[in-house]
Amino acid sequence: MPPIIDPSGTATSPAGFLAGSTFAGIKTYGTGKLDLGILASDRPCTVAGTFTKARLHSASVDINRPRTADGRARAVVVNSGCANSSTGQRGLDDGALVANWVAEKLGAPVDEVLICSTGVIGHFLPMEKIEAGTAAIALSPDGGAEFASAILTTDTRPKHGSVRVGPYTIGGCAKGAGMIYPNMATMLAFLTTDAPVEARYLQRCLSRAVDRSFNLVAIDSDTSPSDTALLFSNGAGGGEPISAGGLLAAEFAEALEALCIHLAKEMARDGEGATRLVEFRVTGAANEAEAAGLVRLLSISYLLKSAIHGADPNWGRIIAVIGRSEANYDENDVTVAVCGHTVFERRGPTEVDPLAVSEAMKGDTVTIDVSLGSGPGSATGWGCDLSREYVTINADYHT
Amino acid sequence: MPPIIDPSGTATSPAGFLAGSTFAGIKTYGTGKLDLGILASDRPCTVAGTFTKARLHSASVDINRPRTADGRARAVVVNSGCANSSTGQRGLDDGALVANWVAEKLGAPVDEVLICSTGVIGHFLPMEKIEAGTAAIALSPDGGAEFASAILTTDTRPKHGSVRVGPYTIGGCAKGAGMIYPNMATMLAFLTTDAPVEARYLQRCLSRAVDRSFNLVAIDSDTSPSDTALLFSNGAGGGEPISAGGLLAAEFAEALEALCIHLAKEMARDGEGATRLVEFRVTGAANEAEAAGLVRLLSISYLLKSAIHGADPNWGRIIAVIGRSEANYDENDVTVAVCGHTVFERRGPTEVDPLAVSEAMKGDTVTIDVSLGSGPGSATGWGCDLSREYVTINADYHT
Repeated sequence: MPPIIDPSGTATSPAGFLAGSTFAGIKTYGTGKLDLGILASDRPCTVAGTFTKARLHSASVDINRPRTADGRARAVVVNSGCANSSTGQRGLDDGALVANWVAEKLGAPVDEVLICSTGVIGHFLPMEKIEAGTAAIALSPDGGAEFASAILTTDTRPKHGSVRVGPYTIGGCAKGAGMIYPNMATMLAFLTTDAPVEARYLQRCLSRAVDRSFNLVAIDSDTSPSDTALLFSNGAGGGEPISAGGLLAAEFAEALEALCIHLAKEMARDGEGATRLVEFRVTGAANEAEAAGLVRLLSISYLLKSAIHGADPNWGRIIAVIGRSEANYDENDVTVAVCGHTVFERRGPTEVDPLAVSEAMKGDTVTIDVSLGSGPGSATGWGCDLSREYVTINADYHT
Repeated sequence: MPPIIDPSGTATSPAGFLAGSTFAGIKTYGTGKLDLGILASDRPCTVAGTFTKARLHSASVDINRPRTADGRARAVVVNSGCANSSTGQRGLDDGALVANWVAEKLGAPVDEVLICSTGVIGHFLPMEKIEAGTAAIALSPDGGAEFASAILTTDTRPKHGSVRVGPYTIGGCAKGAGMIYPNMATMLAFLTTDAPVEARYLQRCLSRAVDRSFNLVAIDSDTSPSDTALLFSNGAGGGEPISAGGLLAAEFAEALEALCIHLAKEMARDGEGATRLVEFRVTGAANEAEAAGLVRLLSISYLLKSAIHGADPNWGRIIAVIGRSEANYDENDVTVAVCGHTVFERRGPTEVDPLAVSEAMKGDTVTIDVSLGSGPGSATGWGCDLSREYVTINADYHT
């Protein structure tokens, strides 16, 4: 039985985690009145992280990478509205100073406090506002829901959830909405657990879960320089550390993956301007990597995303993507189904009624199944449609 | 002095070329009342072609590739409104039959007649309409302008031009508008010359010109399965064949490249829903291939295209693309300019006034200059903004 996600769970659902948020005045657009949050454990944690592969990345990524390298960190401060990216040395200094303020506030070692910033690239952090905001924040064990709101930019709603593993809980939240084409991490995801997990195994579980969830989501084709996923384990639930091959190890990995997939789908469903969630399922690829590559290519097609917006069963656009992909297949074996209707097989169209397919595409979720018939590789990913609203949001986000 | 393009020139500007067009009733959308055209030389030709790299391509590509392999062909029949792609064996048989009809009409050898089809994927050619249309077409030396209209789909205007080389003329036309992210050829381009050109040199010139023009245009991220560029040389201008290293060889290559760039820019300017032409200029790359790779990546960014639509100088989106590209650079050496205003250098923002940049972006053409400071490689490419109209056009193109 797959793990059951509680969509009302948050990053403070696991024992020993606190969070607090405030409106510091950084964010001048988007949803909600919160733009600064702190998530912290009341005791030391092991930590795992995955970060953007983009070479020009935000100051936060430069700060967090060495601070997570030893597998120890216990808190993160997050602001929305300003990415502190492409801000040079001043951006690095600013980010480190904010983390210092939070370390002092929490009485935590400074190298165990992380920082994430999301929003417009190329602007400096408004330091006075953030200093005042940091001082104003009160942390509580019920702060997870507000924290999930404080990290949002153009998202229309928070994305959070939790899942049980034996006596333990894993909780978390994520932000999405735009510049979402993750490569080794998502825009921002913060995960917590009261299970004690050995640091290397924690990283292995996170990397695998991210590869099968956030790394298979696309809202546009634009990888963010701030992409970060963090997973804190504080052991507040007691017991012996979970490690590779040991008790609850497989269950922990599976539950974490299920929670990340839940958050990833929520991100896709709330993509900028999105009206539909799209699930891309590729089977019969030579291997999982080829299947994932085709999922990613399908999910960024302007034409396919537009057709889905119009509930238009124009499957030729799917064929065009397969045709230019690097996947291996024999053309005769390729089949394509839209919302369960097979539209292409044996190199040509089927007899399916386009109007029936169009009707099926008008639901909340559109599924695209591609079977390549060349091997055991499969992958599932998520995206959304392309709407006029996407353009409206992104044509004047900055000025 | 660079070659001068005559934008009123057409594929029948060179001596010895004829064209004719009609409305056969294939096209049920888009611009114009013409959807079937024939372009032919009144004498044998050498021919060069470049075709889509997509593995799942249209029937036409399968028909034309062997027919151009020997460097000889003298006519092409083109229909718009139906791509005859993903139509299996029946599509191949249909396409070959249409070419036969035209060969008979012209009294030309059947293997010297080519066929191109553009429009919706996955529909069969309406053979009765095409047979009647083919019979109705009257060819004339003034048919080039109508032919340039007959090949259009969602384009809002025809794209054609000509250029002189010594005593000779090169003419041509192209179609664009959507599913434009060419890989070794553009959607459709038909070029003619009355210069006598040796077949292998003709192919070399075409391949190089296509690499520097059509292959650097993007309207969306979707490579078409029908991409084809053809260049016919009939020698009607007299004289000795032009060949590599010989008289007029360099001038011919340069003039052809200039004409292809003219057509490529016209395609980008008329991209689906486009309100602005964008010119991407990358310099200082390690080599030309890296520069071209970055141009292509910039030109398909949803976020950058949306920002340009809103005249929003949100250059962080340019940095995000550079950051995830495979280009080599030292971050300290990267500079970015928008419409001539330097917005990013030495790893951070400049003092430029964003409102001044925004004003400059409201013109017909937006330029994006990226200098990587790591080598002699450069490339220039073209694209357009992303508008709500793009979504409108593509959400219900098919049903």
